[in-house]
Amino acid sequence: MSLPTLKSAVVLVSGGLDSAVSLAVAKADGFVCHALSFEYGQRHRFELTAAARVAAQVGAVEHRTVSVDLRAIGGSALTADIAVPKGRSENQIASGIPVTYVPARNMIFLSIAIAYAEVIGAEDIFIGVNAVDYSGYPDCRRPFIDAMERAAMLGTKAGVKGSKLNVRAPLEQMSKAEIIRLGESYGVDFSLTSSCYDPSPEGLACGRCDSCQIRIRGFAEAGIDDPTTYVQAGTTA
Amino acid sequence: MSLPTLKSAVVLVSGGLDSAVSLAVAKADGFVCHALSFEYGQRHRFELTAAARVAAQVGAVEHRTVSVDLRAIGGSALTADIAVPKGRSENQIASGIPVTYVPARNMIFLSIAIAYAEVIGAEDIFIGVNAVDYSGYPDCRRPFIDAMERAAMLGTKAGVKGSKLNVRAPLEQMSKAEIIRLGESYGVDFSLTSSCYDPSPEGLACGRCDSCQIRIRGFAEAGIDDPTTYVQAGTTA
Repeated sequence: MSLPTLKSAVVLVSGGLDSAVSLAVAKADGFVCHALSFEYGQRHRFELTAAARVAAQVGAVEHRTVSVDLRAIGGSALTADIAVPKGRSENQIASGIPVTYVPARNMIFLSIAIAYAEVIGAEDIFIGVNAVDYSGYPDCRRPFIDAMERAAMLGTKAGVKGSKLNVRAPLEQMSKAEIIRLGESYGVDFSLTSSCYDPSPEGLACGRCDSCQIRIRGFAEAGIDDPTTYVQAGTTA
Repeated sequence: MSLPTLKSAVVLVSGGLDSAVSLAVAKADGFVCHALSFEYGQRHRFELTAAARVAAQVGAVEHRTVSVDLRAIGGSALTADIAVPKGRSENQIASGIPVTYVPARNMIFLSIAIAYAEVIGAEDIFIGVNAVDYSGYPDCRRPFIDAMERAAMLGTKAGVKGSKLNVRAPLEQMSKAEIIRLGESYGVDFSLTSSCYDPSPEGLACGRCDSCQIRIRGFAEAGIDDPTTYVQAGTTA
């Protein structure tokens, strides 16, 4: 009886909640997971500490962090001297593309993930985007991801040699509450994750940026205790 | 009488010959050119010195260099401890994808260029790829570039707001000799450019890597003097 062949996957792990669950899904699907994070000059650099903890807890075999200096370009509240909005209402969060949008970020991250997949011979890349709660971010939607898959097939050695490169976005159609419940079922330790766009130097979440508010509401809707300590919780708008 | 509106373009400038001519084409087309280079852990880091000189000589209004540490991924003779092939025959150079291929490099570079274009409000990006002499590199072909344009339209704020993002590859169907003649007609100072994959610390070209050989043959075919000083010229295979 032959053993099943283990397949490797590259899993984007930001340190946030979604990518932790995406990593757990990849593990549950039987992939040998190579976690990939980015030091991109993000204001919330603490998330890299969280990413390392998540990769270890969920069980990646390897965790690499690639530096890409997006501060040289700027254009976002996360990579330039632009204030992170706080205390916005649910309607405000849901409308339009926020200033925390980082130009072409997932395009850049997926390109580097595709390079990494090519080097280790993986055909699968997991990204924890979801289009439901973050409808404002255009690079969290499936048509964009399909276009990146096509570019990867045409523009890489692996692609032209006939490998299929699959960019998997298992959370794309799930709400934050559904993602939290799924992660809980896989034993993801959410206390290790960090969602805040503007944490304290020690990594304490602000509780008032869009990302904190979406997280707080997600746990509430899921009926699961949020293990996060917030400096100040809730909207004030 | 109103003045014509000046349009900005992001131009990828590596320090090599092709991207210098691509920059000259963008200038001649009337674009205000923002040059973009990458420090990606390349063995031939000297090309960044060349890039700065080229940007200044051809007349970019700005030159930014973004660091992206592709050594964290490796997989290429240019970014890992793999020898650069020397003295290969013309047939060897023309066959297959060489070990100097950097996984998904143009995908990564174009993604960052698209981010930069979005930040400065440019709709045009110039890349100096050509599919004729470097037929081995899959990310130098138009179908790949078309796929990247599509991903950019779907995955960026600029794209979803209705901007057209054009990735222009004006040299794609030209031979090296044609590119050199075109650059000469625009007054490109080729002595400032650096093509070598494995230069000396002072930037002297080896004369024997694939890129040097293609350059040497290109100048010979164009009937134009090559201003480059080579440590050792020609094939020995």
